[in-house]
Amino acid sequence: MATEKPILAFLGVGLMGLPMTLRLLQSGYRVHVWNRSRGKLAPALERGAIESATPRDAAKSADIVMLCLLDTRAVEEVVFGPDGVAEAEGRGKVLVDHSSIRPDATRTFAERLASRSSMQWVDAPVSGGVKGAQEGTLAIMCGGHPEAVDRVRPALAAYARNITHMGPAGAGQTTKLCNQVIVGSALAVIAEAVTLAQSSGVDATRLPEAFAGGFADSMPLRIWVPRMVGGYAEAIGTANLLLKDLDTAADLARSTGTPLPMAGLARELFRALAAQGKGDDDPAALVTLYRKPRD
Amino acid sequence: MATEKPILAFLGVGLMGLPMTLRLLQSGYRVHVWNRSRGKLAPALERGAIESATPRDAAKSADIVMLCLLDTRAVEEVVFGPDGVAEAEGRGKVLVDHSSIRPDATRTFAERLASRSSMQWVDAPVSGGVKGAQEGTLAIMCGGHPEAVDRVRPALAAYARNITHMGPAGAGQTTKLCNQVIVGSALAVIAEAVTLAQSSGVDATRLPEAFAGGFADSMPLRIWVPRMVGGYAEAIGTANLLLKDLDTAADLARSTGTPLPMAGLARELFRALAAQGKGDDDPAALVTLYRKPRD
Repeated sequence: MATEKPILAFLGVGLMGLPMTLRLLQSGYRVHVWNRSRGKLAPALERGAIESATPRDAAKSADIVMLCLLDTRAVEEVVFGPDGVAEAEGRGKVLVDHSSIRPDATRTFAERLASRSSMQWVDAPVSGGVKGAQEGTLAIMCGGHPEAVDRVRPALAAYARNITHMGPAGAGQTTKLCNQVIVGSALAVIAEAVTLAQSSGVDATRLPEAFAGGFADSMPLRIWVPRMVGGYAEAIGTANLLLKDLDTAADLARSTGTPLPMAGLARELFRALAAQGKGDDDPAALVTLYRKPRD
Repeated sequence: MATEKPILAFLGVGLMGLPMTLRLLQSGYRVHVWNRSRGKLAPALERGAIESATPRDAAKSADIVMLCLLDTRAVEEVVFGPDGVAEAEGRGKVLVDHSSIRPDATRTFAERLASRSSMQWVDAPVSGGVKGAQEGTLAIMCGGHPEAVDRVRPALAAYARNITHMGPAGAGQTTKLCNQVIVGSALAVIAEAVTLAQSSGVDATRLPEAFAGGFADSMPLRIWVPRMVGGYAEAIGTANLLLKDLDTAADLARSTGTPLPMAGLARELFRALAAQGKGDDDPAALVTLYRKPRD
């Protein structure tokens, strides 16, 4: 018994949003797209996406509205600003926020959207990076009403292998902050392991091979050791994006009385990198903190 | 063309050494065993291992002598002490040290053994824990002459899936320290993520499921989150063993001028745990630093 596919809108077609949108198109979804800078829409439009003039227009056309934006402020603007999502009638519709934003703001936004337009909110931040988006292997941590999560699950499966419902609105964002506590700290630690290997005469490029299948193995190890040792053609994520998440985690930790010594140190190391003017660089740049310039 | 299997000796049949020895026996090797406290030999003897009275006797009987001991001092004692391995003629034989000890001591020991008894030294510390030993999926990082490593490789394959030759004697130990920089720090960070989830109303037991396939996924995550949240029947490794490796890594870092801010903090957190009298507890006990007693 085939049911008709819901019509989608995707707002924020950037580094992550573009490959996610392309996978939705490949899966046969009709996708309305909007982006602050229109230039970035081209690859999606070439593959059949339909351009919307505003977030409101996109929300009018769609059953499910996906967001993948930079930060809390951008989400508030796109949802509640002029011509925002909240200006469209939203009964029976679901907003899926793939952005990584504050859990407390998420709870407020969810209530505000429900009372303004009756649209339901699912927070659904992702882990797995651009490669995970391209290959459809993202991990998505969801917060919201269970029925809303179940409704959007088939569409999310276009780019995610693992979709976990963690609790009410905000629970996805809280889980993502726990994720970033681990990832941000892991990147800082990998930079140390690489540096220790190099300074001790061991070929650091071979660490992922040596650690494969052991306790030190991880996706960040396999992706970032080569980038830290040999450099990279382009950034996959930036130090400042990680720093933003580590700062949000620190706010949550403070408000809940949770000590985060390791993640707190990682945060200040990424801030040191930003202070050196390298915040927009790949997180792999962290290794330069421990090396002579020009090494 | 079947070649005869070398005869083995295994010295140090403890938490890791026992499952490794049992897998060698299962693979059809003749294994001479010795342990400081004889009581621990029973399970190996029941399965066909042959007891040696001293490390020297074990080394006399075997072509390859495996060690899995607690620390640098224990290795020195068993190899160079009275009735030690070095007192047996060692020409054509290889000593494989699975213990995690100092890289500088390893280089000294290797030269001393070669000049005393002509036995070759392969340092071969492991990662993957008791479970990895039982299932034969350990990662082993080797240092030593390439031909010596190749000679012992088939026997090591009884308990290892990944055997990587990293360089001359000591290179395996240096690589293991890089491994422990990552693992020790990861355990401390996982304790923070678990605590942040719990204090923020998210079910921490579900973090491994939510992170599966994403950047925060790792073997320590899957093994230690349940232990940190729900406790454990018995320790798999101890906080003090990790602390020992983090201290050795700090010594190597100091001697090579390598900053290790994250691993240095993890080290002091494990030392705080030890100061609370919990050094012999499972590393999962680290989470108690961030909780009210009796929580």
